[in-house]
Amino acid sequence: MAAETTEGPIRVGIAGATGYAGQELIRLLARHPRATLTIATASQATSTARRLPALARIWDGEVRPLDVPALVASADAIFLALPEAASAELAPQLLTAGVRVIDLSGAFRLRDDAWRTKWYPATGALPDGVAYGLTEFETPAIRTARLLSNPGCYPTASLLALLPLARAALLAPGADIIIDAKSGISGAGKAPTDRTHFCENHGSVAAYSVFGHRHTPEMEQALGQRVTFVPHLVPLDRGLLASIYARLVPGTTAARVSQAFEHAYAAAPFVRITGEALPEIKHVAHTNFCDIGWKVDEAHGRVFLASAIDNLVKGAAGQAIQNLNVMYGLDERAGLL
Amino acid sequence: MAAETTEGPIRVGIAGATGYAGQELIRLLARHPRATLTIATASQATSTARRLPALARIWDGEVRPLDVPALVASADAIFLALPEAASAELAPQLLTAGVRVIDLSGAFRLRDDAWRTKWYPATGALPDGVAYGLTEFETPAIRTARLLSNPGCYPTASLLALLPLARAALLAPGADIIIDAKSGISGAGKAPTDRTHFCENHGSVAAYSVFGHRHTPEMEQALGQRVTFVPHLVPLDRGLLASIYARLVPGTTAARVSQAFEHAYAAAPFVRITGEALPEIKHVAHTNFCDIGWKVDEAHGRVFLASAIDNLVKGAAGQAIQNLNVMYGLDERAGLL
Amino acid sequence: MAAETTEGPIRVGIAGATGYAGQELIRLLARHPRATLTIATASQATSTARRLPALARIWDGEVRPLDVPALVASADAIFLALPEAASAELAPQLLTAGVRVIDLSGAFRLRDDAWRTKWYPATGALPDGVAYGLTEFETPAIRTARLLSNPGCYPTASLLALLPLARAALLAPGADIIIDAKSGISGAGKAPTDRTHFCENHGSVAAYSVFGHRHTPEMEQALGQRVTFVPHLVPLDRGLLASIYARLVPGTTAARVSQAFEHAYAAAPFVRITGEALPEIKHVAHTNFCDIGWKVDEAHGRVFLASAIDNLVKGAAGQAIQNLNVMYGLDERAGLL
Amino acid sequence: MAAETTEGPIRVGIAGATGYAGQELIRLLARHPRATLTIATASQATSTARRLPALARIWDGEVRPLDVPALVASADAIFLALPEAASAELAPQLLTAGVRVIDLSGAFRLRDDAWRTKWYPATGALPDGVAYGLTEFETPAIRTARLLSNPGCYPTASLLALLPLARAALLAPGADIIIDAKSGISGAGKAPTDRTHFCENHGSVAAYSVFGHRHTPEMEQALGQRVTFVPHLVPLDRGLLASIYARLVPGTTAARVSQAFEHAYAAAPFVRITGEALPEIKHVAHTNFCDIGWKVDEAHGRVFLASAIDNLVKGAAGQAIQNLNVMYGLDERAGLL
Repeated sequence: MAAETTEGPIRVGIAGATGYAGQELIRLLARHPRATLTIATASQATSTARRLPALARIWDGEVRPLDVPALVASADAIFLALPEAASAELAPQLLTAGVRVIDLSGAFRLRDDAWRTKWYPATGALPDGVAYGLTEFETPAIRTARLLSNPGCYPTASLLALLPLARAALLAPGADIIIDAKSGISGAGKAPTDRTHFCENHGSVAAYSVFGHRHTPEMEQALGQRVTFVPHLVPLDRGLLASIYARLVPGTTAARVSQAFEHAYAAAPFVRITGEALPEIKHVAHTNFCDIGWKVDEAHGRVFLASAIDNLVKGAAGQAIQNLNVMYGLDERAGLL
Repeated sequence: MAAETTEGPIRVGIAGATGYAGQELIRLLARHPRATLTIATASQATSTARRLPALARIWDGEVRPLDVPALVASADAIFLALPEAASAELAPQLLTAGVRVIDLSGAFRLRDDAWRTKWYPATGALPDGVAYGLTEFETPAIRTARLLSNPGCYPTASLLALLPLARAALLAPGADIIIDAKSGISGAGKAPTDRTHFCENHGSVAAYSVFGHRHTPEMEQALGQRVTFVPHLVPLDRGLLASIYARLVPGTTAARVSQAFEHAYAAAPFVRITGEALPEIKHVAHTNFCDIGWKVDEAHGRVFLASAIDNLVKGAAGQAIQNLNVMYGLDERAGLL
Repeated sequence: MAAETTEGPIRVGIAGATGYAGQELIRLLARHPRATLTIATASQATSTARRLPALARIWDGEVRPLDVPALVASADAIFLALPEAASAELAPQLLTAGVRVIDLSGAFRLRDDAWRTKWYPATGALPDGVAYGLTEFETPAIRTARLLSNPGCYPTASLLALLPLARAALLAPGADIIIDAKSGISGAGKAPTDRTHFCENHGSVAAYSVFGHRHTPEMEQALGQRVTFVPHLVPLDRGLLASIYARLVPGTTAARVSQAFEHAYAAAPFVRITGEALPEIKHVAHTNFCDIGWKVDEAHGRVFLASAIDNLVKGAAGQAIQNLNVMYGLDERAGLL
Repeated sequence: MAAETTEGPIRVGIAGATGYAGQELIRLLARHPRATLTIATASQATSTARRLPALARIWDGEVRPLDVPALVASADAIFLALPEAASAELAPQLLTAGVRVIDLSGAFRLRDDAWRTKWYPATGALPDGVAYGLTEFETPAIRTARLLSNPGCYPTASLLALLPLARAALLAPGADIIIDAKSGISGAGKAPTDRTHFCENHGSVAAYSVFGHRHTPEMEQALGQRVTFVPHLVPLDRGLLASIYARLVPGTTAARVSQAFEHAYAAAPFVRITGEALPEIKHVAHTNFCDIGWKVDEAHGRVFLASAIDNLVKGAAGQAIQNLNVMYGLDERAGLL
C-alpha cells in the first residue's frame, strides 16, 4: 500500500466512458488533484470531440475501443462503468494483472451466491478482496480493497438514511420498512427506449419493478432485514429522492433520532443532515452530497425519512471517486468539492 | 327533484372562476350538453379576453366581480372554487336562497366538529344536507344533496384505490396504511410563491406537510382508520399519483384483490382498473379518469396500489361536474368524455 | 358528393394508428359526431389494451396489422399517418379502390416534380386530384379532393401567420423572411433515438436541420418566395411556436396589419388573433387553435409575428379532421371543439 | 496595481447574495484559489443555513443585512448583484472608499447618457473608470477598471457570436441582424410572479419584450449598428441560446467565417467553437463556457449563428469572476474550471 499513498499521481482508467456514469467520471476526474485519467474506453468508441461535446476543454482525450492490455498498462486503478455481465468478465482479468478495480455495476454487490445467481444471473463467482463501497459505513474494508463494488443509487440514498437508526437500534424489530423512491430518467440509462423517450416521461410519473427491483436484496443485505421497495421515474434528468416509512422502538423521541444522525455523520463530509427542513433533489444535483431529513411522529412511534442524492454523483461516479480516495489514503473529498 | 331532471338547460355559475380549478370548470362546462354557464365571478374580476386567453372561443363570457344576488338570480347550481373561508361564508347564503352548491374547498369535508375546527379553523358549523362527493361511493347521498362537498385531490385518488379493499374486508385490521403521493405543481395553487416558482421545482422533488396535511383526516374519515400520508411535489403541471402500501388479511390472493376491484367498479365509467400494468399520470392528464393498478405480494401479505388522476379534473372540476350530473339525474358522463 | 353529405355516419380508418399523430386521430375521432372509426392498422399491430392504455374507454377497438382490402372494405376515407414512403405506396391503391385519402406525410405536399424528388426521394409521381390541406386558405380545393395532403406542422403555423400579409401585399418584395421555430419533442416522432431521449432534451434547446429542413420548400411553394427557416427542439411534449421576422412595404401601419388579419380570419373558427398579446404554446396545447400575435415596428418597417399551434392537433391530426369535415360538407368544427 | 497581484488572498464581498446570481457567485467563489469571500449581504438577510440550504458545506458564512461600512472594511472588491437602482446608489460610495466594484446590473452598461436615461431611468451619471466586462474583447480596459460593468446575459451570448464577424468586416453593411433568443426561467429572476410560476411555463414557450428589451441598446452599442432582438422564455431552469440570422459580405465563404472565429478565440479559454455541430444549452449549463456554432449559406450570402451559455454563469456570476481574475492579474480561468 505504501507506494499507493505517495505524492505522485494515481493513474486511473475508465471502461465504459460514454454512458452517463462514465461521462460523469470523466468530468470529476478531470479536476481531481491526484488522479490522472490516462485511458478511457467504450465498446463503441469514437472521438470525444464528436461524442462528448459537453466535455471539450474539460477532458480532451480520446475514447478508445476496449483494450485490456492497454488498460492494464496505463492505469493503477480502473473504473468499470459497464453492464454487469461485462464487469463480471473484465474485473477478474484486471485483478489478476494487479490493477485495482472500482466497479459501478451490480455484479459484485451481493455476497450470497444464491442471491447473486438469482438477481444477477450473468455474473459468476465473487472474487476475493471485494469491499462494498458505501463509503460512510465501510471505510476500513475500502482502504484495502482490490475490488470495490460501488453501491446502487437507490441503496446509497436509502441506507444512508436507515443505517444510523438501525445501528442505534431505534427501528422496531420486525416492523415493515417502506421505501418509495423517485428517480430522474438518467437512472434508466443512456440507451434510447420507449421508457426513456422524452414524451413518455414529460408530465408523467409511474412506478416500475414493483417488488422486483435488484436493489432490494442489496438493501436487505446491508440492513439485515426485509424491506418493501418501489421505485418511480419522475420527469427530471438527474437526482433521486428516497421517502422512507418506518416504525421506531416504543418511546423513541425525536431528539434521540437527531442524536443518532449526528453521531453517525459527525465526521462525514458528504452527508448533510437537514432535520425537519426536508431535502430537495435540486439542492444535491451535480454534487456528491446526500441530504437527509426526517420527521418523527412520537405519538404513533413512526418516522418519515427523506434522503436525496444525485444518482450520477453520490449514486455512481462521485461515490466511486470518494472510494478511490479512501483506497489511496487521500482526503475523502479530493476532487469532489 | 322532478323539475331538475327535465330536458331544459341547467343554469350553473362559478364563484372563483380564474383559479386553476375555476378555469377547468369553465373549459368543461362549455361543452356540457345540459348545463349552461350563466355567470362566473372572481374576487379580482377582469375580462376573460385578457385574463383567460386560453379560453377564447371556448367560453367568451365575462368574469365579473363577486355578486351574491346576481349569482342567486342567474343559476340553479353554483360551483364554489374558493378558499375555504370564502366558501364557508358564501355557501349558507346561497343555500338559503334555494341554490344548490357544489363546493370544491375543504370547508365542508369533515363531519366531526372537533376535526373541522382543528384542520379548517376558518370555517363554522356544518349546514344540513351536505353530501361528500366521492361519486363512485356516495351516489345515493349525492342525488339529493343541497350542498355537495367535493373531495380533495389526494383523497380522491387514494380512496378510490383503498375503498374496494376496505369494503371487501381485505385490509389487515390495524395494520399501517402508507400513502406516498406525488402531485403536479398546479396542486399548490395559482398564487405565485417561492413554492410555485419554476426554478424551485424544475429538476426537483420534495416532500411537504409531513404528518400534517389536511387531507389526512379526510381519508381517515372515509376509511375509518388511521393512515400515514406524505405528499410530494413533482416537476409537472397537472396530475397526481398515489402510491399506497398496505397489508392484506392473511391468505388473500391476487385473484381476490382483482375481484374486489372488478366488483367495485363494474359500473363506474371513470375508473379504469389496469391490474399489474401500472397507471401513469400521463394517461389520465386532461381526463376525468382514475387509473388504478396494483401488485400483490402473496408471500408476505402485502399489496402495492397505484392510483393516478388529473388533480384539476377528477381531483377537482371534473368530479364536481360528475357530481352535478348525479344531482340532476343526468348521465354521469355528460360533458366529461 | 351528394351521398357524402347525407346524415349517415362517415366510415373512416387510420393506417399508422400507434404513432403520436395516429393516437391523436383516434382520440379526436372517438368523439366526432359524424365520423365513425371502423378500422385502425399499424405495421406492428397489437391490442390497444396493451399498447394504448391512455385510450381505454375512449376507443376500445383493436389495432390490426396493415391490410389493404380490409381498409378498402371498411372505410369511405382513410387517414394515413405513415412515413412518406409507405404513404406513397399505399395512397394510389386506396384511391383506385374509390376511397378518399387524407395523408399526413410529406409525400404529396410538393407539386413540383424536381423539388419532390429532391426532398422526398422515396416518393413517386403525384396522383391526380391532390389538394393541399391548409384549410383556411384552400377550402374550395379541399371540398372535392380525392387525396388530401395535410400540411407539415411548421408550415401550418408559419403560413397562417404570413399568408394574410402576403395576400394583402404588405410584405416588402424581395426582403428576407426569417422563421425561427420552436417545437416540442413529439415533433421528432415516437421512435426512441438519441434525439428523443429524455435526458438529451431536459434542460436543453438546440437548432437542427439548419437551412435543410423539408418544410422549407413547402413554405416557399405556398408563399411564392424564399424563406430562411431554422427549427429548434424545446423541452416540452407538444406544441410549436413560430417566431417570424419580416419587412413591410414602406408606410405600412400597425392598423393595416391588424386589418389584414381580421379580414383573413373573420370566418375562421380555429384562428385566434391575439394582436400584441403574444401567443403562448400552453394556450393552444390539446386544441385545434392557431393563435397569432404580432408587433409592428413602424419606424423601421419591420413586423414580428408569433404563431402557436399544437403540432399534433392543428399541426397534424386536428387539421386532418378539419379537412375531413370540409371534404364531407360538415361544419368545419365537428369533433374539434 | 502591484499590490493587487501579490500572492495573498483577494478579499471579496457580495451585495445581493440571495438572488440567483448572488448564490451562483457564492458557489463559484467558495472554490476560488485566490479570492476569499469575506462578506455577503442581502436586503432581507437571514442565515444561509435556512435560506441557502443548497450551499451548506460549500459556504457556511452568514448573509448579513446590507451594511456599507462593513462592506468597505471587509473587502478589496465587491460584487453587486442588485437591481440597477440599488447599484447606482451603492457603487459610487464603494468607489469613493477605494473598493473596486463589479456590478452585475444594467446601471452602468450604456455609455450614452440619453440612452441610459431612457432605458435605465433609475440610474444617474456614469462614474469614471467604468469598463464593459465582455472579457474576450475588453481585456485591456478591464485590467485597470475601478468599476466593472458586467454584460447582460443576452448580449454576452449574442456579441460573442457576432463580434468576430463584425471585426473581420464580414457582415454585410446595413443588412438586418436578427437575434431570436431562448432563455431559461432563472433569467426572469427569483421573485415569484405570474411570469415565473411553474404552471405558466411548463409545456409552454412565449416571446416577450418584443422590440423593447433593454439588452437591445447594449448590443447595438457594442456592434455599432441596429439589431432586431426578441427574447423568449423556454421551460428550463438555466441556460440561454441565441439564434442569429445575418447577411455576409458577398463572396464570403464558410472557410472565411471559420477563420474569423478561430482567429478571435485562439486564446480564449471559455469560448468553444463547434462549427457545424450546433451548440446545445445542456452542454454549457453549470459552466462558464460559451459554445458557438454556425452554418453558412454561401449561395445566398447568409449565416446562421447559434450561441449557448449558462445565463447565471457566463451570463452573470461566472463572467463577473472571470473579470475579477483579469482585474487582479490572475489566470482568467481561476475558480472557473
